[in-house]
Amino acid sequence: MPNSFGKLFTVTTWGESHGASVGVVVDGCPPNLPLSVEEIQTELDRRRPGQSDIVTPRKEEDRVEILSGLFEGKTTGTPLTMMVRNADQRPEAYAEMREKFRPSHADYTYQAKFGIRDHRGGGRSSARETIGRVAAGAIAQKILRLAGGIEIRAFVTQIQDICVPALTAFPSREEVEATPIRCPHAATAAAMIERIKAVRSQGDSVGGVIECRVRGVPAGLGEPVFDRLEADLGKAMLSLPATKGFEIGSGFAGTRLKGSEHNDPFVMRDGRVTTTTNHSGGVQGGISNGAEIVFRVAFKPTATILQPQQTVDVHGADTELAARGRHDPCVLPRAVPIVEAMTALVLVDHWMRQSAQCGTFKF
Amino acid sequence: MPNSFGKLFTVTTWGESHGASVGVVVDGCPPNLPLSVEEIQTELDRRRPGQSDIVTPRKEEDRVEILSGLFEGKTTGTPLTMMVRNADQRPEAYAEMREKFRPSHADYTYQAKFGIRDHRGGGRSSARETIGRVAAGAIAQKILRLAGGIEIRAFVTQIQDICVPALTAFPSREEVEATPIRCPHAATAAAMIERIKAVRSQGDSVGGVIECRVRGVPAGLGEPVFDRLEADLGKAMLSLPATKGFEIGSGFAGTRLKGSEHNDPFVMRDGRVTTTTNHSGGVQGGISNGAEIVFRVAFKPTATILQPQQTVDVHGADTELAARGRHDPCVLPRAVPIVEAMTALVLVDHWMRQSAQCGTFKF
Amino acid sequence: MPNSFGKLFTVTTWGESHGASVGVVVDGCPPNLPLSVEEIQTELDRRRPGQSDIVTPRKEEDRVEILSGLFEGKTTGTPLTMMVRNADQRPEAYAEMREKFRPSHADYTYQAKFGIRDHRGGGRSSARETIGRVAAGAIAQKILRLAGGIEIRAFVTQIQDICVPALTAFPSREEVEATPIRCPHAATAAAMIERIKAVRSQGDSVGGVIECRVRGVPAGLGEPVFDRLEADLGKAMLSLPATKGFEIGSGFAGTRLKGSEHNDPFVMRDGRVTTTTNHSGGVQGGISNGAEIVFRVAFKPTATILQPQQTVDVHGADTELAARGRHDPCVLPRAVPIVEAMTALVLVDHWMRQSAQCGTFKF
Amino acid sequence: MPNSFGKLFTVTTWGESHGASVGVVVDGCPPNLPLSVEEIQTELDRRRPGQSDIVTPRKEEDRVEILSGLFEGKTTGTPLTMMVRNADQRPEAYAEMREKFRPSHADYTYQAKFGIRDHRGGGRSSARETIGRVAAGAIAQKILRLAGGIEIRAFVTQIQDICVPALTAFPSREEVEATPIRCPHAATAAAMIERIKAVRSQGDSVGGVIECRVRGVPAGLGEPVFDRLEADLGKAMLSLPATKGFEIGSGFAGTRLKGSEHNDPFVMRDGRVTTTTNHSGGVQGGISNGAEIVFRVAFKPTATILQPQQTVDVHGADTELAARGRHDPCVLPRAVPIVEAMTALVLVDHWMRQSAQCGTFKF
Repeated sequence: MPNSFGKLFTVTTWGESHGASVGVVVDGCPPNLPLSVEEIQTELDRRRPGQSDIVTPRKEEDRVEILSGLFEGKTTGTPLTMMVRNADQRPEAYAEMREKFRPSHADYTYQAKFGIRDHRGGGRSSARETIGRVAAGAIAQKILRLAGGIEIRAFVTQIQDICVPALTAFPSREEVEATPIRCPHAATAAAMIERIKAVRSQGDSVGGVIECRVRGVPAGLGEPVFDRLEADLGKAMLSLPATKGFEIGSGFAGTRLKGSEHNDPFVMRDGRVTTTTNHSGGVQGGISNGAEIVFRVAFKPTATILQPQQTVDVHGADTELAARGRHDPCVLPRAVPIVEAMTALVLVDHWMRQSAQCGTFKF
Repeated sequence: MPNSFGKLFTVTTWGESHGASVGVVVDGCPPNLPLSVEEIQTELDRRRPGQSDIVTPRKEEDRVEILSGLFEGKTTGTPLTMMVRNADQRPEAYAEMREKFRPSHADYTYQAKFGIRDHRGGGRSSARETIGRVAAGAIAQKILRLAGGIEIRAFVTQIQDICVPALTAFPSREEVEATPIRCPHAATAAAMIERIKAVRSQGDSVGGVIECRVRGVPAGLGEPVFDRLEADLGKAMLSLPATKGFEIGSGFAGTRLKGSEHNDPFVMRDGRVTTTTNHSGGVQGGISNGAEIVFRVAFKPTATILQPQQTVDVHGADTELAARGRHDPCVLPRAVPIVEAMTALVLVDHWMRQSAQCGTFKF
Repeated sequence: MPNSFGKLFTVTTWGESHGASVGVVVDGCPPNLPLSVEEIQTELDRRRPGQSDIVTPRKEEDRVEILSGLFEGKTTGTPLTMMVRNADQRPEAYAEMREKFRPSHADYTYQAKFGIRDHRGGGRSSARETIGRVAAGAIAQKILRLAGGIEIRAFVTQIQDICVPALTAFPSREEVEATPIRCPHAATAAAMIERIKAVRSQGDSVGGVIECRVRGVPAGLGEPVFDRLEADLGKAMLSLPATKGFEIGSGFAGTRLKGSEHNDPFVMRDGRVTTTTNHSGGVQGGISNGAEIVFRVAFKPTATILQPQQTVDVHGADTELAARGRHDPCVLPRAVPIVEAMTALVLVDHWMRQSAQCGTFKF
Repeated sequence: MPNSFGKLFTVTTWGESHGASVGVVVDGCPPNLPLSVEEIQTELDRRRPGQSDIVTPRKEEDRVEILSGLFEGKTTGTPLTMMVRNADQRPEAYAEMREKFRPSHADYTYQAKFGIRDHRGGGRSSARETIGRVAAGAIAQKILRLAGGIEIRAFVTQIQDICVPALTAFPSREEVEATPIRCPHAATAAAMIERIKAVRSQGDSVGGVIECRVRGVPAGLGEPVFDRLEADLGKAMLSLPATKGFEIGSGFAGTRLKGSEHNDPFVMRDGRVTTTTNHSGGVQGGISNGAEIVFRVAFKPTATILQPQQTVDVHGADTELAARGRHDPCVLPRAVPIVEAMTALVLVDHWMRQSAQCGTFKF
């Protein structure tokens, strides 16, 4: 099931950019969770086009409808389905895409794989697919909050070569949402926004890095071998469009330390086992250790640019292509809620697994 | 099934460092593949302790036995099971581990998760678990070679701050195996080895980066959404002990480029669609594009060091711990065949999926 | 994923009887299959309420909409989603069901499991859930027909104690559809219809047996151990509402034969291996042998009857209940297309598995 | 993973009749379960050859070894692996099977599927594969007993046309084990044994029916749609060699009743919801209702008989075959512990699922 994610809290997304709708089925959702359509919509609005002047001005209200699994304001434990109708379709804007493969997009690879592709707006490879993930993630985040006091915060730490200074405090949601770039450091945010506007005016695009932190995760979530927490988080992030890298804790920089510098000493604090440093990023041996989970995700510059580019067409001839229309010069601001959503999906799933294996039977 | 990997070519590993054995079941292996126990052993010898003077001198022959699934030198399509008996067990060397949690190891998190742990040699969290992966990967690599001409080559590109210069050619197996560090650039390899020996003499450890390249992969392997090829490769790598990061193609460095610099232009060459650059790392939209697949994996310094470290014990008291015995000062040389094995497992699985969905029915 | 079926051709259904909609996501559908919404509708019309005078007269047009995965009349290989809006909702007819558990329905068990239930029309336990299965099964049947010449035919062979005489020929679709009871033997069909009407006039209900035959299945579909073809067919049938039994080939009657009577002798016929009898029902060792697949499914009498029945309410008090409204006095006529749909889902899935493991690599 | 069963308590079996060993990996086993190798062996001894004078006299001690997942007498939550070496191998007894397909065996279908087969003793299709199931089932039964007071009892109710009278009481283990046929009704057992001996003396074989009852199952186990408890039980049973049918509760006989006769009225008894009859067999809408679970499994007569039979060979020529050697004239006595094992695997799995979804989060 390549379009499903999660073993126990399973989300299955459907839909193409210019098809009838995009949506998601959440299977395995715990019953009796109070839930309103507004809670879902709030998260969708954070990834919506047109929300600020540094994202695509496409007009998509992205109004979500709950199709099943909710009864008198509570989840029933049966599949919870949510759908957004696609509205702003301008198929004529995509006529060229039928013929030409956009560089560093999925046009060519989809054609190679399936022998057919819905070229309109990228079809299934469009980031509109992530609407379903964000909707499902909103539920997962609520579960984690209500049941475990777990809080997830993603934010932009780098745009091109503009980096945020080291953050010590866990940023608040308000700090993140204070600027359209979703960087909690105001001065850096301003520079990032300026850079994005400058690059956009050249018909070009930029990438960057999103960091995500999670606090309140109890020790014991994750699995020993293949389904390590960092492996599942890494897969979740690398399944997002435009991602090229993932690192947890010390990450690539940690490869330059010695073991004596990198190890996180254990100490007792308030009767609990904790560590004095967190190079591990909250995960040891694939399992959470109770410290803050910290990871970073690399996003490449948006592939769609307005400058002419060399490419080939479906008939195997060299040609040239220049995108028109309304595009994100930088995907990161809208990717922040998506990173949070995927993180929540991973954590709820592992919580349920932990409960199933280690919480069920007491001998 | 947290101890299984792969949807169609599924490997399930078992075993603890000091239990009776470690092993693996390969379910879904294509039938009629010629296979000998020696082919498996060859790969296991590459990850074996005691193979050189920069790895642990532990004595483990790691002789593999094939328990099922092979008949008259060919696979039968039924589960192929391989087992290695654990030999060099010195439980007395691990008495302290029963009481104290080793920093940045899995001792504490396993205890937190399961409420019990086999402390001897790290139990299930020991890298001996990867024996099963390497054995299964040997089969996967043979399949890819025979059926698709696909070749996988991993090698060390960085130890602490010592980096290999940019490699243009695809390194040969011989070049990689020429030095015990498995870095195909001889001068750099010498410096790396010297560094490892120096650090070991201090009772310390180092980490680094392994790069993996794959050539011969046809366009079309991978899946659009959650099971993107890079997502599955990332998960595979992050499921290995001591890994903290994964990047494909341009990776984290690519976040500093503009879209106009990062996009890979398509051109026709010899009648085939190809790209003039490979920032994508061989994958676009989650699906291979026929270019070389290139990714890198960050390994932290070995957690086991001989210097005294602050930690806590199972009774919740602060204490100190100093490892004794025989350990790898650097895991990378022995991790090279493991990275290749996991890469092969991912690729065979996606090949089979591609065949199932897109190769079966022609309308 | 309790609401998903199939490993490679995976269907996930959603929806409650009186929620916004019922639907299905088909993940893994082969690309390039020509498909029209009418082909789906045709099958849905066979399970629709109100289609004859022996089924419920509820008014549901059950018009299907394709939401994704179809482009210019062909499948794209991405999730194919189909939805039917629920129309004929009379929640007031179900007020009593909020309070009282209907005997031999799922009301009590859903409440026990989830601690909440959508009581309206049975919610998720309603047979409306099978709409998604029939829609997905229509696609599976088309695939089998186009790619393999495989033909599936289910039909009613028993209503209460009225049994069809032994059928030697494979019934045609026309013969099955000739009567509203979907029994291809006209005289028996007439008696069955008469019986259903008689029982309905007493406010009672009846059950019976559906037989399903499949011809054109090549030898080699199925799996050796847990996923035997008969095991997957059995699971598929027993996952249908109101089913209480499944048997393949000789079934329960075969337990009275000796081995010398039961074994199917192999003979060569037209250069092909075949059997002179078919007690095996087309499956040996879990794998198809090329003979006709023959199995039977037992359906209990409809639980909803108009006579007063003893039961308990949600407050734990003994009480009485009498259904009102429009119900099927016998589910079998409408279950015929559902049995065919589930059979097709199993066979397509195994075809794809077979292709993945045994059709991919040739050594 | 065709050789795996169970979503959360996952067993993967390996091995061929005449390969090095048969075995099983149990993944997902709850930690801290006290377990000894003797407890496993006890169950294996119940399915062992040579245990009585009505089963095959083959000499197989079937001594089990635990290879992983057990530490100081308790499960660790990591994969628990168990293996039995194959001992009594007489490959020369099987030379004819290399050339000729045994009627109603898996020889031909394995060859058709895989293009290769280990013909020795049936290879993977041998009932020796069930050793792994019984070993895993012993653990599952202990879990159910310790944690939930759940008791599973299978027994033979029919051999050919000899049927046990209706049993009202839940048979004790001692009553079942009192006779080698494992029928708790002594007089019927004697007749069955006599029949088996008579048939064996003719070189022939017989089949029959095993009933299984489970008491102590709480209401709420199972899933609404595809993974109904009866569907998973049905799949489990139909995955056993020689099974041709499965029915739960009223089964096929229930198709002759009217709804008013078949429905199980609810009543309050001792403050609990219960039913006055149990045509449902303990399952309603796919979910347990707290009543005894009752189902029956049809086993065909053993395919291996000593009389000459018509068949074809691997070269496509008509020929004749007569089995030699030591075979079970009836598989049912040895199948009783296997039916119990599979039942336990299904129930533990659903218990864990229930805990994960509905026991984890309380809102």
